[in-house]
Amino acid sequence: MRQRHKPWADDFLKENTQLIVPDVKTKKGKWKEMFGNDNPIHVEIGTGKGRFIAGMAEQHPDINFIGIELGKSIIAIAGSKVKNAGRYNVLLLHVDAADLSELFAENEISVIYLNFSDPWPKKRHAKRRLTFHTFLEQYERILHPEGEIVLKTDNQGLFEYSLVSFCQFGLELTEVNLDLHSVEDPENIMTEYEERFSAKGQPIYRCRAQFS
Amino acid sequence: MRQRHKPWADDFLKENTQLIVPDVKTKKGKWKEMFGNDNPIHVEIGTGKGRFIAGMAEQHPDINFIGIELGKSIIAIAGSKVKNAGRYNVLLLHVDAADLSELFAENEISVIYLNFSDPWPKKRHAKRRLTFHTFLEQYERILHPEGEIVLKTDNQGLFEYSLVSFCQFGLELTEVNLDLHSVEDPENIMTEYEERFSAKGQPIYRCRAQFS
Repeated sequence: MRQRHKPWADDFLKENTQLIVPDVKTKKGKWKEMFGNDNPIHVEIGTGKGRFIAGMAEQHPDINFIGIELGKSIIAIAGSKVKNAGRYNVLLLHVDAADLSELFAENEISVIYLNFSDPWPKKRHAKRRLTFHTFLEQYERILHPEGEIVLKTDNQGLFEYSLVSFCQFGLELTEVNLDLHSVEDPENIMTEYEERFSAKGQPIYRCRAQFS
Repeated sequence: MRQRHKPWADDFLKENTQLIVPDVKTKKGKWKEMFGNDNPIHVEIGTGKGRFIAGMAEQHPDINFIGIELGKSIIAIAGSKVKNAGRYNVLLLHVDAADLSELFAENEISVIYLNFSDPWPKKRHAKRRLTFHTFLEQYERILHPEGEIVLKTDNQGLFEYSLVSFCQFGLELTEVNLDLHSVEDPENIMTEYEERFSAKGQPIYRCRAQFS
């Protein structure tokens, strides 16, 4: 989502470098040190306004969360949400997630969340979808052998594409859910998008996949 | 679907042995001879009242279709539908599809259709679902190396289960469609169930999977 540039966002980023990490590439392989403990690290690609990561961080204090978001104003909103919640198990990265190998070492990550990623519906844009095989190659490199990808979307086309792409890459699906909200699940933390689309009665899809 | 026994069904089966094949186990490996040509053979497991197989046979005169159905009255209805349509590229088998290896030789079949199969929703009945791994082992044996399974259902639970089961078995998904009727497809032949459920606005799911 694009939002107008907000000057306060610049200031927020400068004043909160313990939360919105600068010079991220120098931290590759050192994320456990950054968090100061040995807990597993989960990464959300496209954190948006941070509702999911803030909720997950609260629900799972023994997991460290890293949110990646390119929009400066948006990551500042996410940052203030995390800050207000007083969570210390979250770090946010204001970078393009195009090359995750520059950010994370092999096996450094336990779970990757792809929440309501851009569906890039045109066929010629397929390579931009975050479940295109070039991205899966990156995920495989940075994920633990038993690590997993968790995908949530309301977009039928992206979900169909992703299931095929996972399977063709040799990933093993461990869960497919075609209507996440048909059964109440207190453990499911909704994103901003999810709440909006789900309220309209659209089904929310989720799947989990592993490389092992 | 269970229907009351109808005496006319007995007579229909006796009088139409060229269409509803008796002594099916003796035909294993000889289905091309039965059809009298070398065309590929597609099998529908659970043919019901035959709308799908009759429509497919008309749409694809260069393919031979075998429908398997356990209900005697139901297969008689399917038989009269095929007979009225004057199709010679269809054979019907009034047998339990529990062991396909008794009916077909290795590599004898090109496509297996699972249309609106019983979802067996209870976990303890999972092994009865036609996409349980023991069935997949049978399909692998009788299918051509490039053969495929085509699954259609309105049942969310069965579809979710089947995608996971296919993927865990090492099958490659080549198509996933989460709302078959959202785009008009003149090549999609509807089953009786499909028409009824689709008319209610329920999404119809379809996927294709290959062993290669």
